[in-house]
Order: sequence, then C-alpha cells, then structure tokens
Amino acid sequence: MSPTTSALAARMAAVRARMSELGIDTLLLSLGADLPWLTGYTAMPLERLTMLVLPLETDAVLVIPQLEAARVQPRPELFSVQPWAETDNPVRLVTGVVGRSRRRLAVSDRTWATFLLALQVELPRSTWTVASTVTGPLRAVKDDDEVAALRAAAAAADRVAADLLSGGIPLIGRTEAEVSRELGDRLVSAGHDAVNFAIVAGGPNAASPHHEPGSRPIGAGEAVVCDFGGTMAGYCSDITRTVFTGDPPEEFRDLYAVLAGAQAAAVDAARVGTSCQAVDAVARDLITAAGYGPNFIHRTGHGIGLEEHEDPYLVSGNRDPLVAGHAFSVEPGIYIEGRWGARIEDIVVATGAGPSSLNQADHALAVVES
Amino acid sequence: MSPTTSALAARMAAVRARMSELGIDTLLLSLGADLPWLTGYTAMPLERLTMLVLPLETDAVLVIPQLEAARVQPRPELFSVQPWAETDNPVRLVTGVVGRSRRRLAVSDRTWATFLLALQVELPRSTWTVASTVTGPLRAVKDDDEVAALRAAAAAADRVAADLLSGGIPLIGRTEAEVSRELGDRLVSAGHDAVNFAIVAGGPNAASPHHEPGSRPIGAGEAVVCDFGGTMAGYCSDITRTVFTGDPPEEFRDLYAVLAGAQAAAVDAARVGTSCQAVDAVARDLITAAGYGPNFIHRTGHGIGLEEHEDPYLVSGNRDPLVAGHAFSVEPGIYIEGRWGARIEDIVVATGAGPSSLNQADHALAVVES
Repeated sequence: MSPTTSALAARMAAVRARMSELGIDTLLLSLGADLPWLTGYTAMPLERLTMLVLPLETDAVLVIPQLEAARVQPRPELFSVQPWAETDNPVRLVTGVVGRSRRRLAVSDRTWATFLLALQVELPRSTWTVASTVTGPLRAVKDDDEVAALRAAAAAADRVAADLLSGGIPLIGRTEAEVSRELGDRLVSAGHDAVNFAIVAGGPNAASPHHEPGSRPIGAGEAVVCDFGGTMAGYCSDITRTVFTGDPPEEFRDLYAVLAGAQAAAVDAARVGTSCQAVDAVARDLITAAGYGPNFIHRTGHGIGLEEHEDPYLVSGNRDPLVAGHAFSVEPGIYIEGRWGARIEDIVVATGAGPSSLNQADHALAVVES
Repeated sequence: MSPTTSALAARMAAVRARMSELGIDTLLLSLGADLPWLTGYTAMPLERLTMLVLPLETDAVLVIPQLEAARVQPRPELFSVQPWAETDNPVRLVTGVVGRSRRRLAVSDRTWATFLLALQVELPRSTWTVASTVTGPLRAVKDDDEVAALRAAAAAADRVAADLLSGGIPLIGRTEAEVSRELGDRLVSAGHDAVNFAIVAGGPNAASPHHEPGSRPIGAGEAVVCDFGGTMAGYCSDITRTVFTGDPPEEFRDLYAVLAGAQAAAVDAARVGTSCQAVDAVARDLITAAGYGPNFIHRTGHGIGLEEHEDPYLVSGNRDPLVAGHAFSVEPGIYIEGRWGARIEDIVVATGAGPSSLNQADHALAVVES
C-alpha cells in the first residue's frame, strides 16, 4: 500500500500538532517505520545516514545518500530532498537544518547509536527523546485503509494456518527448519512480499517461545508450535497455532483447553476503553487459576502494523486504554520446560462495535497424522 | 561457522587489551555483528533489550529477555547470562553491572536510540563512544577460518554469477524482480543460508547504483547490473557483474573497458601497507582520465565479514593502511543518467603475498541472447 500524498500530509499535520503539544522542536527520522509512515520512503539499514529532519515551524528535509536518492518518490509538498555525496558529512547536513541553539529533539527509536552519538557531539545543548513519544500513539490508531491491509495480510496467513491445521503440511520426520521454510514459502504464495519469521518448535523445543527452528526432526506424539508472519503491501501478519502429531495425552488436552479459554477471553476483553494491562490480566488470571501461572512467561500481546511489534503493548504496567483502530496480537502461551508448550495467537482490532479478530483459522486443538 | 570457545576467548582478550589502550571502561553490545563475533550469539532486532556488558576489569554479563535465553549457547568461561522477565527493567540491569560512577563507555554502533537514550538517563556522568572504535580494527583482520568462510561464500556466489554470464538465467522479457528472486533462490541452492540483497537494474535503471528491482521488464539491447550477496555459515558474499542483452554498442564497450581496467588496477593496488584511499584513487583516477569521473558516484569498496558492510572502507579520506587479513569489496561503477550503467565487484583479501581475489567469475563483458 503506497499512501497518497494527501494521506501523508494529514499524518504530517497530526505529527506537528503533537510535537507542539509535547514541546518537541524537531523530529529526526531514520530507520524504522516512522519514516515510511510519514513519507512513503523506507530507508535501508546502511552505514550511510538517511534522515528526515522535520522542524515544527519550517519545511521538512530528507537527507539521503546520493546513491539512494533515485529510490525516493519526490513529494515536494511534503519534504525536499538533500542528497549527500560519499565524502560529505551527513551529520553536519542534519545539524545545519536543526540549528545549533538549544532544541528539544525526538529521534526515531531505531536510529543507530553511531548516528545519535555523532549528532549529540554536534548538538551538545539539545535534549533528546525518542520519536515514538510523538508518533507511537498516532501510528497505533489504524485508519480504514490500514485495517484493510492488516485484514488482507491476516487472511493470507490464515490460509497457510488452515493448510497446517488440516494436515496439508507434513510434519513427522521433517526438521523444524524444513517446515519453517515451507511455511515461509506458503506465506509468499499466499501473497506476502516478505517472510519476517516462521518459528517451528516441536516436542521439548515448544517450551521455548522464540525457539529458532533447527535440525531436530519432528516426531510422532509431539506438540508443535508454529508462529509465522510476514509483510504484505507494507503491513504485517502474525499468527500462531499449535498442532499435535497424533492423539494428544489428556494432560496436554487440559493445558490446551485452559490456553484456548484464556485466549478467547482476552480477545473478548479487548474493548475500547479497557486498559492494555487489563487485557493481559484476563488471560493471565485464567492461566494462573488453572495452575499454569509460572508457565506463561511473556506478555499477552503487541501492537502490529508497519512493524511486527509496535504500540500498544498488552503488558502489565501499561495503563493506556484501547482506542478504536488499535491493532494488536492476543497470544498467551503455556510452556513446560523439557516437555512441551502451546501458544495461540490472533491479530485483533479494537472497534466501537467490540473486538474484531482478523484471524479466523480454527482454534480447536488440531491433531495431524503425518 | 560457530566459533569455538577458545577462539572467542582470544577475541575477548584482544578486546580487553584494546579497551585498556583506548581507556574504555565498559563495552556494551546489543545489535550488530560485534555480539556474535565475541559470544557466538546473535541478538534479534527486538524492542526487548539484549546487551552484553563487558567491563574491562570484571566478568562479562549477557542481559537477555527471558524468552530468548534458551537460544544462547552457555559459555560460562566467557560470560554469565542474566535473563529478565517481561516486567523487569533491562536498562536498570545493565546499569547495575556498569556502576554509576563516571565511566567511559563504548556501545555497539547499531544499538537503537531507544536503548541508548534510556542508558544515558540512568548514567548521566558517563561518556560514550561507538564500540567499533574498539572492535572495528580487530574484526577487520580476518583469521584463516574467517577467510576460508568468506572464500566459500564467494565461490558459491561465483557459481550463480557464472550461470548469469553464460546465459543460464533468462533476462529478456522478465521483470527485474523476477530475475532478482531467481538470483536469490540460486544463492540458497548454492549453499547460502540467507539472501541479503539481489539488485537487478536494467536499461536506464542501471544508472542507479542501489536500484530496487521492480516490475520493469528487461529488454533486448540493455545493460543489466546484477549485484547480489547473502550469508553462508555466518559470513557474507557480495558480487556484481554487468551483462548486455544482445550486441553492445561501441560506446558501451568502451565504457566497460575503462571500468574493467579500473577495477583490475584497484584490485592489484590493494596491497598490505597501501592506504584505503589510495586504492580508491587508483580506480577513480583511471575512470576520471577516461572522462567518466562525475559518473563514478560512490566509494570503491567496503570491508566484508559477518556484515556486508564493515571496516575497512575504501574511500577518499580513509588514510588507514591495508593489513594482511583485511577483506573488502573492489567495485567501481560508471553510471550514465537516463541511459545505462555498469559495475564490476569482487571480494579481495589483502595478504603478505599480494591481493587475493576471492571471486573468480569472468570479468569480460558478457553478451547474453535471451
């Protein structure tokens, strides 16, 4: 999805309003999703600095390496482009726009230390904060086009999940890495432009939430956690389903029933006005009541959009209320060290009419025979 | 290539020696290649902080999110592991190890601003520099195992380049994006674990050095610049060849001859003791003498290893001499806006016996008919 210049102009106006509110003089955007969200241009992670300088009061300037400049779609209504040659000092170009008086600056969260430290040397009187204080709450609220893009990406991920749940992706005897590659290939076939991750964790590995798929072959009689997602037309998908290879023992069925109940209850609790931490607590309390509290070792969810992980985070301590247009994962898990684990994840959008789950793939414990 | 604990211990000793020399009290490593180079562990680019805290005088501690901890291969001789739970404050854990007195700290170049700014708030009396001042010169000198890994990756990339040069990869009528995907698939088939980029730039797009492969079909009678690389057993490949679809006009043959001569001369100049900028000047002077000076708009090369771009950079202004074990690209280019372009790139290692080109794919202008 390439946003229109008028959509970008509206975002820039909202950013300036919020800068004014927060007393930020200049926004400095390099790596991360703030830059494409505001300009349509994505900077490569290079040792050559790309930085949008957006002063509250004057026009924005995109400082960019000369050999990247051809990739920028010019939008002179929004920003001018200042390419720099190989022997120029881009930090000086940025500070030239910022000015040397005392400023309150907000720099994109993923800016590399190498650039931030160089800027701090040149601008010793300025104070610094992260750009997400400005952009986070704005980016977290998705407009209709963004929700449509997230819905399309979720539907594509659902098709891959349906293949997995129906046994269309053989598991037994294949390595986690092989299955991971197949999930990724299927995401691309389903319309994704890029695969961001495809966790496949079988048997005892399923107890490690961020397990790196390896050379271990998946056996019969194992829980297999599959958590995968990618980018489609700029927006991210992220889904987790847990399948069992063969007839699951009673104990695993019980664990899964607790988890599925907690996940469904947390989705249902994700209503406009409810705090992020309250949604986390709904899942956590149910899992804890069933005796699995110490086995749920991560937060319940994260916002999603241009990035896989962004505001809002569903975690204890986050008192911010959900707002219509917030999009986030709801993904409790239960992990039994050395034995097995399970996680269920959907992407959900908070709306005035209640939570809308973008993922529709079946939540029942899937038993696969191959 | 997973380095042995004793190889890592030797690197850590060299790092401490250099910290002492530079007066650095503590090294702080998060994202980037310094961390895997020193610990064997690669941190994911997450909003959850992973950071190795390596004080000059005391033992190193790896502060890591609890749900990533299972991915760490424990090496208690080198560092202890301090996992943090979802509601812990990892910045406080780091500052607890650093200590609150005035310190000289070096932080990895790619550390996100969000973490650096949080650390600066907690450690207001400390001064900061980038970790590459410590690690850059050490990492730039590759040991025999590393050169072997780079050589293997280059040989794999050469096989893909040979397919391209021999016409084994159809170009005419296909889009740049399709050819890019095939180059990536072939890198994986040749043994790469990941594709890092595959630039395909045809016709007028060949004048943009970092062109993003798009929907433009490649036509007959066009220059096509193909620049691709990936990671194999941890180390990177990077090669560029330019082919012509059909019989090249005299003017392009002349341009290519100038470029090939400049590239070969620069490779030959890349000898131990020669400055990085002198190698750049060799290529640039030849291209300038032929009238193409303004059309060579980037530096001649970059170091390569665990990262695609690292020290040493072959660029005007870099007076550092080449050292035996330095590995780097030599990749001049000539770009004629709106018309065509060409680039030739090999990875070269400086040795006591002279420059050793890791890439052996043919340098002659390849004419392909399909």
